[in-house]
Amino acid sequence: MNQIEALENLVAYFRALPGVGLKTAQRYAYKIINSESSFAEGFSNAILDAKKKIGYCKECGNFTDREVCEICSERNPKVICVVREPKDVVAIEKAKNFNGVYHVLHGTISPLENRGPNDIRIKELLERISKYQTQEVIMATNPDVEGDATALYIAKLLKPLGVKVTRLAQGVSMGSELEYADEVTLARAIEARREI
Amino acid sequence: MNQIEALENLVAYFRALPGVGLKTAQRYAYKIINSESSFAEGFSNAILDAKKKIGYCKECGNFTDREVCEICSERNPKVICVVREPKDVVAIEKAKNFNGVYHVLHGTISPLENRGPNDIRIKELLERISKYQTQEVIMATNPDVEGDATALYIAKLLKPLGVKVTRLAQGVSMGSELEYADEVTLARAIEARREI
Repeated sequence: MNQIEALENLVAYFRALPGVGLKTAQRYAYKIINSESSFAEGFSNAILDAKKKIGYCKECGNFTDREVCEICSERNPKVICVVREPKDVVAIEKAKNFNGVYHVLHGTISPLENRGPNDIRIKELLERISKYQTQEVIMATNPDVEGDATALYIAKLLKPLGVKVTRLAQGVSMGSELEYADEVTLARAIEARREI
Repeated sequence: MNQIEALENLVAYFRALPGVGLKTAQRYAYKIINSESSFAEGFSNAILDAKKKIGYCKECGNFTDREVCEICSERNPKVICVVREPKDVVAIEKAKNFNGVYHVLHGTISPLENRGPNDIRIKELLERISKYQTQEVIMATNPDVEGDATALYIAKLLKPLGVKVTRLAQGVSMGSELEYADEVTLARAIEARREI
């Protein structure tokens, strides 16, 4: 079989994307080669541009192209919703019934993966709570073992500070991924959040 | 919801890839942003490089980074295997029992999609057959309605020229995509090819 180096190289990059196998990577590469040059140039620039311009909000840790993201600049920091990943912010924003700010932990506590409280953004959360005199923290980590453990750990830290800590209500099903919950389920879960 | 232009733009490019929806495109974009700068730069260059260096072989129409591809330069043009797409060449090469050259049609005859014999590379096939005094043409278009119709059309064109025209044997199942057939099935299909 003839090996075309430039093709193999592009296929290898596509395979590095999450969930992409060899055949899918080949289809993606063929699409690039079969398209207009302007598509390849635009795609190439979009990757560089996203990597260059997008960083983490110094407040909440979500992706942003500014120093402080739009949500943190405009909304009330008295209520903070704590999530694991930036994509969870997207999911909760779709529910359209939360007006506070977010805090992205970038992970959950996981002894199995050797990730402790100091490896996720808990210190930054405590700083924000004292800086803004936050009244309520909604724990919106995934409803699975690690998400629950992280929520409980943070709740225990915050109780002595007099902060109300709540957890998303029943409605998000056990073992599922927050990212795939539908808007109505997430909206109900926010409405019926309970103190822990 | 805050819109980050550079992120939306990258997500839009990923969505233009075959079979990629919004959530998959977002996961791909997050992977780029979360990786090292060197990954984004390498990816970006790989796209430009593939588009710039890879073109079509002027003989067979397959992808190549030369004027004439490796297969056409080295192998015997007395037997030509005709396929619809470059990915079908990859599939047949894996079967490892074909030593001739390929001819990529870049499509099949499809009245429904308004694609006639002049819209695919049939003229180029006739030129190659007369140039190399080809003895056999194996029609390896997909075993579906369009693939069969295209094979029959080409067979009728070639019969008066005294060229033997064969079709991949039973073994590739009706309605399936050639690209996904396993190596053994394809090898048997090549061995048991029959004249049409």
